[in-house]
Amino acid sequence: MKLYYSPLACSLADHIALLEANAQFERESVDLKTKRTASGADFREITPKGYVPALVLDDGEILTENIAILDWIAAQYPTLGVAGKLGRTRLLEALVFISTEVHRGFKPMWHPQGRDQLLQARATVSGLLDMLADNLSGDYLFGPAPSVADFYLFVMLLWAERFEVPTPEPLVALRRRMASRPAVQAALRQEGLVSADDQPDEAAA
Amino acid sequence: MKLYYSPLACSLADHIALLEANAQFERESVDLKTKRTASGADFREITPKGYVPALVLDDGEILTENIAILDWIAAQYPTLGVAGKLGRTRLLEALVFISTEVHRGFKPMWHPQGRDQLLQARATVSGLLDMLADNLSGDYLFGPAPSVADFYLFVMLLWAERFEVPTPEPLVALRRRMASRPAVQAALRQEGLVSADDQPDEAAA
Repeated sequence: MKLYYSPLACSLADHIALLEANAQFERESVDLKTKRTASGADFREITPKGYVPALVLDDGEILTENIAILDWIAAQYPTLGVAGKLGRTRLLEALVFISTEVHRGFKPMWHPQGRDQLLQARATVSGLLDMLADNLSGDYLFGPAPSVADFYLFVMLLWAERFEVPTPEPLVALRRRMASRPAVQAALRQEGLVSADDQPDEAAA
Repeated sequence: MKLYYSPLACSLADHIALLEANAQFERESVDLKTKRTASGADFREITPKGYVPALVLDDGEILTENIAILDWIAAQYPTLGVAGKLGRTRLLEALVFISTEVHRGFKPMWHPQGRDQLLQARATVSGLLDMLADNLSGDYLFGPAPSVADFYLFVMLLWAERFEVPTPEPLVALRRRMASRPAVQAALRQEGLVSADDQPDEAAA
């Protein structure tokens, strides 16, 4: 298996998931502006979509779309999914909400077009985070252990910190809880988001 | 089962899917501006998200998010899904692409903010439709019979027609093929998109 990612992109969720699963995989970063991979390949020859994540399976099949890849990982490693008759549907529901509402809500922050739009986007995302905070089931979205939806949410919470989005206390606590997990620390180090000697700030909290 | 929908919203895909499946279900329309259902209920008491589709199952569980609901319907009625080991993942991949790229791409058309933005959005969506057209497997996205992803794509093609988005010939053909199906005609009639006596234009083609 090989994961194509870009540091701090939503592919970080898949990166964490594969490490949490103890999966055997290679990884290669992609420059999303030039569409070149770290080894110099043209990423559009790997997937014409040109965006991360992309996951190449051992039989050569290439999966794209963050939600589809996270769902696939949870299906392979059920401890990262949600149990019960409606488990996969509830997991998908959370993944889709995080993707189409929260992730999309950050767009004006990554590509700012003026202060009013930035403030509006911050307020929108903050409201969406409030909705998620109201729906935690214990320490995480679906209970005492994290699912792939929590990994995606964690990336959004890193973005919220970066862009100073007001974040409800239960989600600040979830971010710190996530950041203290060894697999998360390993993913952050491997994406160059903390140095090998550093722990993320949250890990100490 | 009960489907909450709004005419010509993406919930039309779920409406078609349930009719194609010969499922027993009720339906009620929602005014997305006032958040009132046709019978006068406050839709936010049914789902705080306030957007369609929402599907109430017979045991009272409420599903939200179009992708999650379409995936759930395909899991209940496998002829509307995609067969094979990676079938559910490939279906999800298509649903996510249609949602996060195509559906989102229409936003500046539904909420216009100037001619430049409109033209840009049209060009973007047209390019995305070209990508989908290149990936048809026969008559539909995954072979000779439509899946729930084709129902979602069909709604996007109705929007493309409405907003004069240049549409590749294979997808115009797919739209006509879909529009000739009795379940699709029934859904369009029930949403008030064609009169009871009319056939949609495409049905004659």
